[in-house]
Amino acid sequence: MKRASLAVAAWSAVCASSVAFAQTSVVQGPVTASSVTLFGVADAVVGYGSGSYTHRTQLYSSGNSASRIGFRGLEDLGGGLAAGFWLEAGVAYDTGTGVAGNTNNQASGATSADAMSWNRRSTVSLIDQWGELRLGRDFTAHYRNRTDVDPFDNNGVGTIQPQVGSIAGPTSTRASNMVGYLLPPGLGGFFGELQYFMGENPNHTPASDDGNGYSGRIGWRSGPFGIAVAAGHTDYQRTLNNGDITSANVGASYDFKIFKVSAGYYHDKVDSLPEVTATGYALGVIVPVGFDQLKFAWSRYGTDAIGNPAARKLSLGYVYNFSRRSVAYATYSHVSNSGGSAVGLNGALTAPDRSANGYDLGLRYSF
Amino acid sequence: MKRASLAVAAWSAVCASSVAFAQTSVVQGPVTASSVTLFGVADAVVGYGSGSYTHRTQLYSSGNSASRIGFRGLEDLGGGLAAGFWLEAGVAYDTGTGVAGNTNNQASGATSADAMSWNRRSTVSLIDQWGELRLGRDFTAHYRNRTDVDPFDNNGVGTIQPQVGSIAGPTSTRASNMVGYLLPPGLGGFFGELQYFMGENPNHTPASDDGNGYSGRIGWRSGPFGIAVAAGHTDYQRTLNNGDITSANVGASYDFKIFKVSAGYYHDKVDSLPEVTATGYALGVIVPVGFDQLKFAWSRYGTDAIGNPAARKLSLGYVYNFSRRSVAYATYSHVSNSGGSAVGLNGALTAPDRSANGYDLGLRYSF
Amino acid sequence: MKRASLAVAAWSAVCASSVAFAQTSVVQGPVTASSVTLFGVADAVVGYGSGSYTHRTQLYSSGNSASRIGFRGLEDLGGGLAAGFWLEAGVAYDTGTGVAGNTNNQASGATSADAMSWNRRSTVSLIDQWGELRLGRDFTAHYRNRTDVDPFDNNGVGTIQPQVGSIAGPTSTRASNMVGYLLPPGLGGFFGELQYFMGENPNHTPASDDGNGYSGRIGWRSGPFGIAVAAGHTDYQRTLNNGDITSANVGASYDFKIFKVSAGYYHDKVDSLPEVTATGYALGVIVPVGFDQLKFAWSRYGTDAIGNPAARKLSLGYVYNFSRRSVAYATYSHVSNSGGSAVGLNGALTAPDRSANGYDLGLRYSF
Repeated sequence: MKRASLAVAAWSAVCASSVAFAQTSVVQGPVTASSVTLFGVADAVVGYGSGSYTHRTQLYSSGNSASRIGFRGLEDLGGGLAAGFWLEAGVAYDTGTGVAGNTNNQASGATSADAMSWNRRSTVSLIDQWGELRLGRDFTAHYRNRTDVDPFDNNGVGTIQPQVGSIAGPTSTRASNMVGYLLPPGLGGFFGELQYFMGENPNHTPASDDGNGYSGRIGWRSGPFGIAVAAGHTDYQRTLNNGDITSANVGASYDFKIFKVSAGYYHDKVDSLPEVTATGYALGVIVPVGFDQLKFAWSRYGTDAIGNPAARKLSLGYVYNFSRRSVAYATYSHVSNSGGSAVGLNGALTAPDRSANGYDLGLRYSF
Repeated sequence: MKRASLAVAAWSAVCASSVAFAQTSVVQGPVTASSVTLFGVADAVVGYGSGSYTHRTQLYSSGNSASRIGFRGLEDLGGGLAAGFWLEAGVAYDTGTGVAGNTNNQASGATSADAMSWNRRSTVSLIDQWGELRLGRDFTAHYRNRTDVDPFDNNGVGTIQPQVGSIAGPTSTRASNMVGYLLPPGLGGFFGELQYFMGENPNHTPASDDGNGYSGRIGWRSGPFGIAVAAGHTDYQRTLNNGDITSANVGASYDFKIFKVSAGYYHDKVDSLPEVTATGYALGVIVPVGFDQLKFAWSRYGTDAIGNPAARKLSLGYVYNFSRRSVAYATYSHVSNSGGSAVGLNGALTAPDRSANGYDLGLRYSF
Repeated sequence: MKRASLAVAAWSAVCASSVAFAQTSVVQGPVTASSVTLFGVADAVVGYGSGSYTHRTQLYSSGNSASRIGFRGLEDLGGGLAAGFWLEAGVAYDTGTGVAGNTNNQASGATSADAMSWNRRSTVSLIDQWGELRLGRDFTAHYRNRTDVDPFDNNGVGTIQPQVGSIAGPTSTRASNMVGYLLPPGLGGFFGELQYFMGENPNHTPASDDGNGYSGRIGWRSGPFGIAVAAGHTDYQRTLNNGDITSANVGASYDFKIFKVSAGYYHDKVDSLPEVTATGYALGVIVPVGFDQLKFAWSRYGTDAIGNPAARKLSLGYVYNFSRRSVAYATYSHVSNSGGSAVGLNGALTAPDRSANGYDLGLRYSF
């Protein structure tokens, strides 16, 4: 009975683990045992970008939180056991389409964004006091430190550069065909997960291991402090442009109450001919202003390719909370390019080594 | 408090504005504050068409009301404010697929119908006593007079010809990337909306404005009478077959209780080389027969292209209401072509200037 | 009143007719009058296959029951009448995508699996004491004897060979554009259905009848015993590889309480040049082990093509029931090929006339 409750608590806690040390505004309905919960985010934003070549105004989706609709359920089986499922589909509110996914962790497995798929998550779970076994498609463990330290939660024009510019390939954010294990709660603040995912190619071919990989993350939370380290590796056949991809990163945050600070360091390597290595940094601050939030982020991401191209980004945002569900938000971002980098904002094109500015003004409704 | 209730009433009223002066049979569940409502229509129909070339029997979807499934939610924020979302996906009940949408208001943005997308509507709204701000994909304002005066609600073989034959291009019915504003209720019967939508092309190209446009509609309701005028304009690069598209129309209805009359006038212009102009008329009558409905529509749509091709259509329908949710219906339509027009019915092909007949027999369930 | 209840009971019974004489583990929520029910299955499985050429490990979906999500509703209209709808979408839990469907019962109508469609079922129904009229996409009647006698319910590595190897073409399992009629319950144990479906091609062409077909099934249940015969026919233009497809089969089961036996015989014919005929057998046993199940199946499917290729399959499975919703399962299968057949298991390739082994270990959650 008590262990059963623990297992259910584990589910809630594990579900929330990716938002554990960076605040997000996403309000999701409660997880009720043995029932199905409908949840989602509706986020649409008017974005303007100006670069040295072009400027652009667009309506787009997910400026504050990733627009989505999902169903999830959990059954408390008693004796410390629980089982559940999770389906979560991205939604492009500007056009009514879905968001592209990937079926085999390789470029060849990219799916069309025309319609709705459970591209964000599709998992079946078995949970007991030893942790959670999770089968399906989900975030990779080495992704989580990118969203956890980002005050903008990797959404909208403010997204930190280590996410925007990531060279870490098809499994940079999510992987399909995954067997995952997550530590249970109640380990003195420790949390972690381990994943193995498959490209599912025929064997006896040069690319038979492409899309196979593993990822892991371990962290510790205590009161206002949290820290996590993660690493992931995915196999790809070595070519001029591709090869095994390895990522390692660390993220941490401290909540001083009057503001919350987060920081991250990122290292991504593509074992192509020649090898390319990228290094990134992110620093975030969230200042509660009454019921609202002021957000600040500085980040940098650059590679050792010829010229050492790099982009530095400054983002400033304000989130006005009508309620926990309903918010309006405004974001300003400035990106500076060097070494041949030509990162633009909100669809505007900018020349190498020139800067770009971007503005978001949006509405978000969570259900 | 009172203003909050007004805002919520505004949502319901605004949602219903497109069915305000022509009767439709669609029963949708109530909108409840701060919750999510599942709604939909399941409509399948056996249709037979006979033209001078071929005849055809088919099972198809949406003979009486557009088959769909959707989720919507609204939160009353107090002080006259409310926020909400709306997701609505077309369903082809004959095959289980979805219905095609469009991501950029241009031919290039057409999406596959293979699967389910929120092609009918995907919006986020902020509502106060000054009206509703609506972001996303939705009907264009200049579409509404085509469905409002049609006793067949633009569904099935009976659909009026100004809808079937419309030359008004990708934004004829809906637009993506839209910022819309809708007047609040309580303006002495006045209602209206204004929309701006974007094609989101790179600038500095000849087609950079393609898919950009605006649309507006203003109307007045008083007791049994309603009238609305609308106009819309979408930019496209001028070619032999395409160019800016402008639509203007007016619709009105009067409910005499023993029957309801509606009428519409439509003018669509494509600024191609040479320019093509289309003119349309529609007249509708709905006669309540106990709990049931007898429907009659006459319509015409023709262009000034060589030969002045035009089609005239007569439709007669009966809707048998088992309940508000469940109906059976039968429709007969006859179309007469002239000037080289070759409009067929229910997939049957007919020769230029020949006529065609169509029959529908269907079931509809609303939830 | 009483007849209304009968009609509603009919719906439940008819819905369940495909699982009437072979046990399945799918637990679906109750059908409530005048409401919408959300239901689904989340099933993910680690599968390993070894053939003479390759071996393969994969995470895949639906090893015990077909992963899906659906909505259905029914309104009791009184006086023996009811109306309802059913939408059911396949889900690939390993990747978050959907499952491919078919819009016209021909190879040309295959749809993409990238996203979610209602590929499993999309129907509108009218039900009275004389039976059910069902319009849309659904299982073909001649499919049901393949799943009813299979202890593995046609899912996972254990699936009987008459299903895996079926030469019965696009309508082997489901058909679109279908008008179906199902007998009501209360006929002394008799049940049955009759279907007509359409390919919806233009007429006056050599392939105008392609995809048109009909299917029927009649059966009888009494206490522990059930039997059903079915036949279906679909038209296709005769070519070297294709032609009219005819299927006939019979299935039966007897529940001895300490175990349940089922058996099926299958005959499929493709009227190509030259004609190809296939014959299949299946034998199934389910042994309840406390709350769990031990499953055994033997099956064979072979054709009269050159060499008389045939595959024989032995499957052994165990289902551990945490609860009615949540199960874990393990399955072992062995396939033996002869006459040039080269059937592999779980994606592994095997040489003609060589055998293959497959293993499944999975989790299923029903909601």
